[in-house]
Amino acid sequence: MEFEDFIRKTEKVVEEIAAASHGIGIVIGAPIRNPKKEGKDLFNAALLLHEGKIEGVVHKTLLPNYDVFDEYRYFEPAYDWNVIPFKGRRIALTICEDIWNLGDNPLYRICPMDELMKQSPDIMVNISASPFDYDHDEDRKEVVRLNVEKYGMPMIYCNAVGSQTEIVFDGGSLVYRKDGSLFHEMKYFTEDFFLIDLHELEKKAEVPVSASTLSMGADMRVAKADDPAAILNQLTNTHNIAQIREALVLGIRDYFQKMGFAKAILGSSGGIDSAVVLTLACEALGKDNVTAILMPSGFSSEHSVDDAKQLSLNLGNPYHIVPIQSVYETFLTSLDPLFKGTAFGIAEENIQSRTRGNLLMAIANKFGYVLLNTSNKSELATGYGTLYGDMAGGLSVIGDLYKTQVYALAEFLNLHGEVIPHNILVKAPSAELRPNQKDSDSLPEYDLLDRILYLYIERRKGPAEILSMGFEEALVKRALRLVNANEYKRNQFCPIIRVSTKAFGVGRRLPIVAKYLS
Amino acid sequence: MEFEDFIRKTEKVVEEIAAASHGIGIVIGAPIRNPKKEGKDLFNAALLLHEGKIEGVVHKTLLPNYDVFDEYRYFEPAYDWNVIPFKGRRIALTICEDIWNLGDNPLYRICPMDELMKQSPDIMVNISASPFDYDHDEDRKEVVRLNVEKYGMPMIYCNAVGSQTEIVFDGGSLVYRKDGSLFHEMKYFTEDFFLIDLHELEKKAEVPVSASTLSMGADMRVAKADDPAAILNQLTNTHNIAQIREALVLGIRDYFQKMGFAKAILGSSGGIDSAVVLTLACEALGKDNVTAILMPSGFSSEHSVDDAKQLSLNLGNPYHIVPIQSVYETFLTSLDPLFKGTAFGIAEENIQSRTRGNLLMAIANKFGYVLLNTSNKSELATGYGTLYGDMAGGLSVIGDLYKTQVYALAEFLNLHGEVIPHNILVKAPSAELRPNQKDSDSLPEYDLLDRILYLYIERRKGPAEILSMGFEEALVKRALRLVNANEYKRNQFCPIIRVSTKAFGVGRRLPIVAKYLS
Repeated sequence: MEFEDFIRKTEKVVEEIAAASHGIGIVIGAPIRNPKKEGKDLFNAALLLHEGKIEGVVHKTLLPNYDVFDEYRYFEPAYDWNVIPFKGRRIALTICEDIWNLGDNPLYRICPMDELMKQSPDIMVNISASPFDYDHDEDRKEVVRLNVEKYGMPMIYCNAVGSQTEIVFDGGSLVYRKDGSLFHEMKYFTEDFFLIDLHELEKKAEVPVSASTLSMGADMRVAKADDPAAILNQLTNTHNIAQIREALVLGIRDYFQKMGFAKAILGSSGGIDSAVVLTLACEALGKDNVTAILMPSGFSSEHSVDDAKQLSLNLGNPYHIVPIQSVYETFLTSLDPLFKGTAFGIAEENIQSRTRGNLLMAIANKFGYVLLNTSNKSELATGYGTLYGDMAGGLSVIGDLYKTQVYALAEFLNLHGEVIPHNILVKAPSAELRPNQKDSDSLPEYDLLDRILYLYIERRKGPAEILSMGFEEALVKRALRLVNANEYKRNQFCPIIRVSTKAFGVGRRLPIVAKYLS
Repeated sequence: MEFEDFIRKTEKVVEEIAAASHGIGIVIGAPIRNPKKEGKDLFNAALLLHEGKIEGVVHKTLLPNYDVFDEYRYFEPAYDWNVIPFKGRRIALTICEDIWNLGDNPLYRICPMDELMKQSPDIMVNISASPFDYDHDEDRKEVVRLNVEKYGMPMIYCNAVGSQTEIVFDGGSLVYRKDGSLFHEMKYFTEDFFLIDLHELEKKAEVPVSASTLSMGADMRVAKADDPAAILNQLTNTHNIAQIREALVLGIRDYFQKMGFAKAILGSSGGIDSAVVLTLACEALGKDNVTAILMPSGFSSEHSVDDAKQLSLNLGNPYHIVPIQSVYETFLTSLDPLFKGTAFGIAEENIQSRTRGNLLMAIANKFGYVLLNTSNKSELATGYGTLYGDMAGGLSVIGDLYKTQVYALAEFLNLHGEVIPHNILVKAPSAELRPNQKDSDSLPEYDLLDRILYLYIERRKGPAEILSMGFEEALVKRALRLVNANEYKRNQFCPIIRVSTKAFGVGRRLPIVAKYLS
């Protein structure tokens, strides 16, 4: 058994919770030992605790092993299924993925609910830790509803809320009547509490199933149809952006709380990315806990510092100005014996970015702050960032948002009054590492680039498929080559709060050494 | 299908190789599509190509999903088994892990060779890409021999050679007679070629099985018995250190060759770690392709620069001296408005380390070099390193070697004459970031620390088990707490050439947010 000590601790906690289960039944998830020699050492289990004892145990059957999931690495799948009798009802208890094979999921050959139906359950209960993404809420409702429809009984679907490093669990637990109508929907992105009267639940619905819910589901399916014209809407529509905002705030807050940190620092450049991160961080941690550092150089535009100052004045958070020019020049002087006679280039640009990274880390180390990273997904995809410079940080807040989404989120954050100064929203994006630099000198326009990246990364289309959608060949080849050539940079990047169906990080594993698309 | 384009490219390459198979049979590995709707899209397959055609296809049955392996994520396991008739013999062709369940491996319920035996094969052929570790060569021979013994027929075991990012494949292909005697053992860590005369192979051995091979196997098993006293021998014995040296040289060479790089840079401090990395890099890439940068500070001991210079004079590689004092002081001046009145501490130490990282990256960016990292496993385990400072780099050469192993490797590299100056071997380890600093100010002595780390990391023992072996409680708690608290640092580290059974990186996945052992 690996990590025997950890398993023993979980067993102790289960005992403590069981000891508190007087008069109520408590359903929790826990790892449970596999008593057989065959198979892996553990099951992923759900337990029904009652009157101090473990009243029922269910092993998870369908162990996802794609994207962020690695369950098959650690757990043995269930090989038998039992309904749990409790207070006069027969509960079909399942865990998360177990309800996601309705018989047509090619990943699985077993349908746990089909097995449980042989024992005539009355009600379905599913406990889930279902990771949030902005495409997911309607899928989830649909799966719960389809289970209710297929098996003809009510369902209580209880989803985790809170974040774990990069993964956000968004709550939104659901209760459905057996006729497929929604009985209750719990809060998203925050803890919630609700008592279900089973007699009420088992009554027929008095109103027909909401038509608006169904049509929203239909809209989502259209948007997922890989239509290039629909992609920008999918990335930036207000429904999704509103959810993303809540996910990111929860992601920041829980990371700090669970790691035992209180205070954050970030570089505030006067650009859109750091403005959005600073605004979200102030919301998550409180404005007094977020320090902005403004680090102008000789290449900074005159508005950069003013805009960044105005942002912090609007937010009310502390900020300091630490110019980088003297450190940058000392670096150049120290390197002059080696660099003499060479032209200004990427090395000199990166020295500036890394000087900023070094200053931010020094202040973070001195005062016990955590550095929030401000890179966006378009930059990370194309490698348009400096390792150990603007790629430094302990947590990436917007690393799963394309640049077009960062703009949409900035506008959303300004909906009820200007927080992010207008000038930040309208100026052309620039790294400001050489005179009059613009992102568009090095990269395609973001509305075009982001659509290609989305098709390649989230939709997993190959170059031939993307080309067939009508994008210019040179542009597609360049964008995809940049994505592939920069695995080595992203490999050293901090955790990214995941809001899409495919974020960089644990859910996307590609080799660094690879030549197939060079 | 994900990455359809990639699969099409592999199909095209298979066709090209098949077209060359005139007069010979060629066995290669390739992904093959799963024609059924059920199951994952691909099989991990071995193909026998002959006379321009695919003559036989075998799907891999046992798909490892532990440590560095993720095969179950991508592949569907085989569900039928067929011997391939070829030139009058019936070949039982299997892939790597397929021969690692002799009926008693709890991870698997199927034994592919048992299935193939139903079709009366004459000879076993296994193609493997079996990752090297310094504990593995005798295990592998033993498994091949046990298969031969169980099934009573000769076996040709063909292992890959070369490295893929962090994983080294060490070759050492094996041919066994049906009586369990070794017919031929091919070269390790380099490509090799051998023609097997099957009539010769099928003859009985004229000499008994080598006693020395068997007794070496027995020694290895003793050393793996988790005896604290035997651990240092296991880590540093000459047999293992000699293999590690070859693995690291191959790991460096193939990373550069496959990424299309020729030249490396590293910081040469006059310490043991950078001395070993520099020596290995010169061997792998050629001395003219490895530039050493000496970056003394005001805290550097007087010998540091002299020792580092002498090392490069011994090796004959180019070096430059770039002092960091002026950059460091400019950083302090820039930060003075914020740092005024605070004491010298970790922030100031890290500024020095990051200044060095910044200088190395600047030179690397300017001239197209790749920065080799020089951190060792004891440092990485305990977090005794600076993110973006001495933790910077594109490839970690000795990140899977404990400090005691680095010393043993240094002595091994000096076996045929002094390459690494004697003074580097005997001085007390120090980061030289404050006056008279020694590693032992912050860390336990390495011979003690490394044994605890080895038990925790490689042997997966929990704190209770390690304590029961007689180590001091405070020491064990401190060491394990440091390991757990530094997941966030290692999460941003570059790929480490893997030489142990459990390296940091893809094969060891632990959460950053976790409190169970705090």
